[in-house]
Amino acid sequence: MDETLRTPVYPGDMDPEEFRHHGRAAIDWIAAYLREIESYPVLARTRPGEIAGQLPVRAPEHSVAMETILADFQRTLLPGITHWNHPGFMAYFGITGSGPGILGEALAAALNVNGMLWRTSPAATELEERALDWLRQMIGLPDPFRGHIQDTASLSTLVAIAGARESTGLEVREHGLAGLPRMRLYCSAEAHSSVEKAAITLGLGRSGVRKIPTDEIFRMRADALSAAIQEDTANGWRPFCVVATVGTTSTTSVDPVPEIADVCARYGLWLHVDAAYGGAVGVVPEMRDLLAGCERADSLVVNPHKWLFVPIDCSALYLRRPEIVRRAFSLVPDYLQTPEGVHVTNLMDYGPALGRRFRALKLWMTLRFFGREGLAERIREHCRLAREFAEWVDAEPGWERLAPVPLSVVVFRRSGEDDLNEHLLEQVNASGEVFLSHTRIRGRYALRLAVGNLRTTQAHVARAWELLRAAQP
Amino acid sequence: MDETLRTPVYPGDMDPEEFRHHGRAAIDWIAAYLREIESYPVLARTRPGEIAGQLPVRAPEHSVAMETILADFQRTLLPGITHWNHPGFMAYFGITGSGPGILGEALAAALNVNGMLWRTSPAATELEERALDWLRQMIGLPDPFRGHIQDTASLSTLVAIAGARESTGLEVREHGLAGLPRMRLYCSAEAHSSVEKAAITLGLGRSGVRKIPTDEIFRMRADALSAAIQEDTANGWRPFCVVATVGTTSTTSVDPVPEIADVCARYGLWLHVDAAYGGAVGVVPEMRDLLAGCERADSLVVNPHKWLFVPIDCSALYLRRPEIVRRAFSLVPDYLQTPEGVHVTNLMDYGPALGRRFRALKLWMTLRFFGREGLAERIREHCRLAREFAEWVDAEPGWERLAPVPLSVVVFRRSGEDDLNEHLLEQVNASGEVFLSHTRIRGRYALRLAVGNLRTTQAHVARAWELLRAAQP
Repeated sequence: MDETLRTPVYPGDMDPEEFRHHGRAAIDWIAAYLREIESYPVLARTRPGEIAGQLPVRAPEHSVAMETILADFQRTLLPGITHWNHPGFMAYFGITGSGPGILGEALAAALNVNGMLWRTSPAATELEERALDWLRQMIGLPDPFRGHIQDTASLSTLVAIAGARESTGLEVREHGLAGLPRMRLYCSAEAHSSVEKAAITLGLGRSGVRKIPTDEIFRMRADALSAAIQEDTANGWRPFCVVATVGTTSTTSVDPVPEIADVCARYGLWLHVDAAYGGAVGVVPEMRDLLAGCERADSLVVNPHKWLFVPIDCSALYLRRPEIVRRAFSLVPDYLQTPEGVHVTNLMDYGPALGRRFRALKLWMTLRFFGREGLAERIREHCRLAREFAEWVDAEPGWERLAPVPLSVVVFRRSGEDDLNEHLLEQVNASGEVFLSHTRIRGRYALRLAVGNLRTTQAHVARAWELLRAAQP
Repeated sequence: MDETLRTPVYPGDMDPEEFRHHGRAAIDWIAAYLREIESYPVLARTRPGEIAGQLPVRAPEHSVAMETILADFQRTLLPGITHWNHPGFMAYFGITGSGPGILGEALAAALNVNGMLWRTSPAATELEERALDWLRQMIGLPDPFRGHIQDTASLSTLVAIAGARESTGLEVREHGLAGLPRMRLYCSAEAHSSVEKAAITLGLGRSGVRKIPTDEIFRMRADALSAAIQEDTANGWRPFCVVATVGTTSTTSVDPVPEIADVCARYGLWLHVDAAYGGAVGVVPEMRDLLAGCERADSLVVNPHKWLFVPIDCSALYLRRPEIVRRAFSLVPDYLQTPEGVHVTNLMDYGPALGRRFRALKLWMTLRFFGREGLAERIREHCRLAREFAEWVDAEPGWERLAPVPLSVVVFRRSGEDDLNEHLLEQVNASGEVFLSHTRIRGRYALRLAVGNLRTTQAHVARAWELLRAAQP
């Protein structure tokens, strides 16, 4: 029997020429999308289930042509996208999937490197270390800090707290938390929910987090922190970590890190700084004092995917003593041992995940494309736009600002009831021109305007203000 | 003063036309790379520090042209890449960044969606649910399972074990593990290191994991599991979870899931199945019985980025009762509340990370491009190639096979000392034509040949065998 008949030709992957054809189509589509992005409503206008309702319930049995898939992407999925890359996106924190970052992601997917070990791509490990060191210099952290990438700030903070837990010498890695004194970590009442989530994950529980009251402008009170630590210690808790925030989520308040570092030094606690958003301002020389005290931290997270224009996900975790986190997490089974042994960095040793995407590539490309100077220029302008918007709010009767504007976010409301503001936000977001989000400040519903997208200009911020004032109460 | 002079023109992002130009160059490069990938050595030939040594120590101050960055990528970084997308890559588990998957990643980076909430891109959430349901059907899991994406199997397993921990009713979420009885989970001695790492992270400690002996072909012994649970219970431990593996890392052995499910039912333990690699064979009808018993699991992980040709990272976690994991992790601060409330799925509720990349897009594109049938055809061929290689080993005097070949990995060695085999592996990998890895089987050094890349054909496997036999002992 003819061998070629018995074994059908193995089809393998998409042919490279076919890839080039569809790849160019995808690139052309992206270029057009970025050029015409303002023709899309920022916030998706779909109802729950509307997108799912257009997708077949049955799994695809046979191969579908790439043209069809790309057409379905545009026709079926795009109406259900909230456009984070739109200049009118001013909700949560504004972010950007920049040109160099998009190209970095495409190249990384083509290489499809798993950088778990040095040898599984030396360039992935060495570029990650180098690019993170560049970012460290750019934001002004001192030399002892060593950085690596986690997917999100939530995981960076989790890994940092795990390092803090290990640093107690209580042998949590070996024996777990059962039988130990109850451990406690501290953050302000304004800290991000990821701190509490990390405590849940790490087995410390929600009650393992004590939230310290803030001052009148939403900064952790160092005196209250000190008192809480003393009280807890007297009651049998084991304090072990403080999480300070540079740029809280609601108001972008900046905790007094120098004073908090003093408290940590006094009681021997690990200081982690959540600068996921705010850390980016370190690239702006005249704003760098917002990071004062961070040089004394044990760990610090800053997210290049937030305000440094790298596509999501890319979170940079800096550690003063990376060997502690390594001690907490490193496990090397036989099948992951390599001849290089301890003479190289194996990045799998620094967190819970083994597999590791080549995220450093897009970071490297973005840092080089803009340069420190270019990043500073853009961040400076975002802050100027936020201050300008704040001035408009301050000058307008019937409107009030609810927090200072140290960075690029303005928190404000129309004087009146919560319902009024909620209603107003819905109207403005329904315009499709801008998307703002909300928070609560001391229990009151507040609107948030967050500048952070590379395409956002004064015209977009002015339009948001126009829409807000025109909305019917 | 002229306003245009006072405020310099804000530069924003790369211009869309410039993006199109560089994007096409990147796509053309990728197409050529995929076509000529066999001209690269699979395993990078660089020495530690060699790549870093070519990267400037000082952070870039000024913007660099994209042409320069792309040229540096090729000149400086590429020599330090281990080519996971090369058909000669047969180390660890073979994977593929397929054409449709690469395009999916590029599109996702351009949209730059953070799918943390339904409203932050309804299509991201609804597509993830639908694509995961397709994959569920494809691998033959029953209807109650609901899937979502985590970055890696390590995190999927961590989230599953956190669900198991929560299901005990011990209120770990609220109060943590201190003061509770010591909890224990079970896996085989062949289980992946990520199980132990999850236990460390979750505060259970390494001693919270008991490794159950395996039978002569590396499958967990259900009788030994049952005895261990009884012994631990008598000694004051609180057993709560069993992790069974379908396709272990060293030998791809398949634990007897039906018997393990019986044990879990008897003692009321959560059953998690690590099918990160092996789960893919569910798409091949005649191989589906390898997943027998998985329908009784509480959770199961299968990685589309392993053997389903999706670029790293994309791990699918299926949960029988997702509400338990939601109860463990959900935290909704004011700034993340939405008008849709509980009427929609907010994927941030199902794990430790808040931020969420639009990974479902590449999964959806890949599943449609190949179809169930196309995936099965390729996986079937990979298994055939592995069986054929095993036959060659079996037929060759002086070589021995160390484990059965239920999937696409062959574990074998040349008869003789460990050193001999280690030396042999180094020679073969130095060829640049193939990259194999190793493990230890009952203490003995063993070579592993893992078929899983879409470009790997019989010729590549035959060449590996040729190189192995030709290597000088």
